[in-house]
Amino acid sequence: MSDAIRKVSIVGQGLIGSSITRAIYARDINANVVVTDSSDKVRRKVRELGLGQARVVDDCVEAVKGADLVILCVPVRQIAKVAKLVAPAMKPGAILSDVGSVKASVTAEIEAAITADVELVPAHPLAGTELSGPEAGLPSLFENRWCILTPTEKTSPQAVEKLVKFWEALGSKTEVMSPLHHDFVLSITSHLPHLAAFAIFHTAKKYEGETGSDVVKFSAGGFRDFTRIASSNPSMWRDIFIGNKPQLLEILKRFIADLQVFSDAIEAEDLETLTGLLSQSRITRRKVIEKEHISVQPKSDQEKSDRVLIRPYASDF
Amino acid sequence: MSDAIRKVSIVGQGLIGSSITRAIYARDINANVVVTDSSDKVRRKVRELGLGQARVVDDCVEAVKGADLVILCVPVRQIAKVAKLVAPAMKPGAILSDVGSVKASVTAEIEAAITADVELVPAHPLAGTELSGPEAGLPSLFENRWCILTPTEKTSPQAVEKLVKFWEALGSKTEVMSPLHHDFVLSITSHLPHLAAFAIFHTAKKYEGETGSDVVKFSAGGFRDFTRIASSNPSMWRDIFIGNKPQLLEILKRFIADLQVFSDAIEAEDLETLTGLLSQSRITRRKVIEKEHISVQPKSDQEKSDRVLIRPYASDF
Repeated sequence: MSDAIRKVSIVGQGLIGSSITRAIYARDINANVVVTDSSDKVRRKVRELGLGQARVVDDCVEAVKGADLVILCVPVRQIAKVAKLVAPAMKPGAILSDVGSVKASVTAEIEAAITADVELVPAHPLAGTELSGPEAGLPSLFENRWCILTPTEKTSPQAVEKLVKFWEALGSKTEVMSPLHHDFVLSITSHLPHLAAFAIFHTAKKYEGETGSDVVKFSAGGFRDFTRIASSNPSMWRDIFIGNKPQLLEILKRFIADLQVFSDAIEAEDLETLTGLLSQSRITRRKVIEKEHISVQPKSDQEKSDRVLIRPYASDF
Repeated sequence: MSDAIRKVSIVGQGLIGSSITRAIYARDINANVVVTDSSDKVRRKVRELGLGQARVVDDCVEAVKGADLVILCVPVRQIAKVAKLVAPAMKPGAILSDVGSVKASVTAEIEAAITADVELVPAHPLAGTELSGPEAGLPSLFENRWCILTPTEKTSPQAVEKLVKFWEALGSKTEVMSPLHHDFVLSITSHLPHLAAFAIFHTAKKYEGETGSDVVKFSAGGFRDFTRIASSNPSMWRDIFIGNKPQLLEILKRFIADLQVFSDAIEAEDLETLTGLLSQSRITRRKVIEKEHISVQPKSDQEKSDRVLIRPYASDF
């Protein structure tokens, strides 16, 4: 394995793939970039956009030739399939990575699919928007965001270190953990919140017959935040949910039990228990804010207006 | 009852109360404004802020004297108590309103508490932020937001019309409906989403022992949107949840059942069912967007960056 990453191949040029391409050029990283996408339309769009000096090729096998690092930016269900396709064409000892939201099951699939002499370093940048496609990419997408690397037992520390450096060069903070631990953390911080947002829509939709168009009409407040979360790509999330099935089902079971605790406290009008339950989030929120060094105070009146929730009074009269 | 609202009394100067005060002056509404708050600190802050030409008085009974419109901007649990206190001091035929998030139970409480000859027109502006206090108020808070009016059977159409005009003068869109229908709509669009956000925190917190500090550390993505929602005032939401108990428990029961449907589909890896479940929100989201005439496309790169969710790829490779 050579010491530096001189050539990067990015397979898939959607939001994340094209953001990586953009970030490499925006941050003056000294590497040749070859990109591809299975969609003619996406490749055409990438050529149109002219992302840095990236070379756009039609075929993923051709794209990975001679690369020191190959990043698969394709949907979770496609990762192992594409890995199997490209790995034999890769330079021996080169790094094969991805950006998928689930790790344990997919990493096992990749390991079963490839026999080539490559260094497998799965990764997951905790960044994105609810938008899709190469035109939605942003050079700054990964700045100050976490990128979690989940090497296998066979991965060399040198390969991990190289990928850590690569993501840090893109502006990310990095953390190395096991695929299973990743899936556990993400089940709480990402998969469950998304599932809850999707499910609230489902519940609202079923109720729409009774409420006429009111759900839609009066959707200011909490619901609006959920609409944004739940407007994400359905097939992508379906695959994430299934890909992280054991962890997600476990956390979902606990969440349903906890909702029942809330329900019982409301039913009993148990003020003390309810206050305790509702206060925890303020404490956790504060910790989130402190950790991220972001201000809880809005910067402008516009930003204050943008934070619209249904919170109709606030004094303690 | 006189024809115009010449004097407005606003009891409670938290986020909503102080925003009404601000909006009256910002929009050049020709009315005398008297404000009060049970908290010395809040009254002092309001005097310091000097909201328009509003007169700040120490006592709510004094504040309502001679007013054509009295708006109680106090927590849900306090509304009936304060109504009982101020109604006897009100001008006969004047309008008594509020801004509470729950209507059926509170309206019944108010009706039971007062005997004075006043026109009761409860209202609920669907606006707010997760911030509290008089300094958090905004003159533009109600612009283009819904304000739902929920008159009782005894309320005169003239009184309803007057309050409609008042809220429209503050920039709101208005809708008149029964208290019960209001509570039904809000249970879906506001109370359930908030409850879900609070509950996810509870679940995460219980799990924290197992995850160390990881939940907090990696809270980018869906979780972050929830932190904002769930950082709202615990005692306020406790009272909203209990105040809307029958509607909320019903919708919560349905939500739990729907979560179980999602769970079963994930367990069975039923791709077709899951895709169907997850696609509904996209359709509803589109309807929300269309109704609100807001663009789904971010206006700037900054805004795109601000919409950070965990969505690590988007092409259909």
